[in-house]
Amino acid sequence: MKLSPFFQKGFCLWFTGLSGAGKSTVSSAVHHTLREHGIANVELLDGDEVRTHLTHGLGFSRADRDTNVLRIGWVCQLLVKHSVPVMTAAISPYRETRNEVRTMVERVGGKGAFIEVFVNASVEECARRDVKGLYAKAMAGEIPQFTGVSDPYEPPEQAEIELNTASESEEESVVKVVRYLDEHAYISGVED
Amino acid sequence: MKLSPFFQKGFCLWFTGLSGAGKSTVSSAVHHTLREHGIANVELLDGDEVRTHLTHGLGFSRADRDTNVLRIGWVCQLLVKHSVPVMTAAISPYRETRNEVRTMVERVGGKGAFIEVFVNASVEECARRDVKGLYAKAMAGEIPQFTGVSDPYEPPEQAEIELNTASESEEESVVKVVRYLDEHAYISGVED
Repeated sequence: MKLSPFFQKGFCLWFTGLSGAGKSTVSSAVHHTLREHGIANVELLDGDEVRTHLTHGLGFSRADRDTNVLRIGWVCQLLVKHSVPVMTAAISPYRETRNEVRTMVERVGGKGAFIEVFVNASVEECARRDVKGLYAKAMAGEIPQFTGVSDPYEPPEQAEIELNTASESEEESVVKVVRYLDEHAYISGVED
Repeated sequence: MKLSPFFQKGFCLWFTGLSGAGKSTVSSAVHHTLREHGIANVELLDGDEVRTHLTHGLGFSRADRDTNVLRIGWVCQLLVKHSVPVMTAAISPYRETRNEVRTMVERVGGKGAFIEVFVNASVEECARRDVKGLYAKAMAGEIPQFTGVSDPYEPPEQAEIELNTASESEEESVVKVVRYLDEHAYISGVED
């Protein structure tokens, strides 16, 4: 696979899914792949950096979760407005709020600039992995308002890309995303 | 005056000064001038938009003021990192905090990418204008923690640009900023 470093316009790859579904892993891998092929100007809004600089102090109420998502979304539209491709991975559990971000991004980047990537793994699968030990705590009632356990997750109805991280490899997920970008002329020169 | 639409790299024009000193007026005018001369990709982080999407809910304690400034600064460095010139106008009263932003911006944009613009007008002058009627209220003790009246403002010690809005016209201030950008090769082709 090769990518030519040619972007027509900015776009926003918005990874959504449960904690532990693989959002950060796949988004990092896509970012790495794009950079490896010479596309250096893609911003990955890293979870830690976003929490430190942008959303510090927000909690898990519906209002705070929405503020979190809309604030990240606002930064994404700012980058897209200036033709900078951006990727971000936030649980973003509410459909309506994600759609607000879609509207913001498409307002500046045009239709298609918001690419929702549903990282689909069931609660059971995420709890089985439980990389950070959070599901065990949530299921024991030690973490209130934990998405998928004691707080809602509303899956996208028509995500542009769906990744099934329980049945496909990380590389397969990456290829799906890159193919999408190629097919929609955001990147070019992809070869297998 | 003519500008050629050629930017070498991103930069951050950081307007600081008292409420009513003219930060928004001059920064808007510079933005307008640059756009008029074909430089369309300059972001002006507008006060209202920033308050709505980025810093909503923050108050006037030292901690909240710092969070406000650092959050705007973080967004500025993100744009500069991707070669997008950005302008912003926040009171940003604390020297140390502005210097933290300087460090963040220069880390990605290189030395010189942070351009501090001190919009210098005295409290007396700002209170005389009192466009929003805030100084009268602050001086009557109706607004606590009002910068310059009941809260500190630490002027820059070595601002790259100083505007004296009491003695110079808006156009003169704009020309100072544009000349600076030209002399430092951020823009080119400026003619009188």
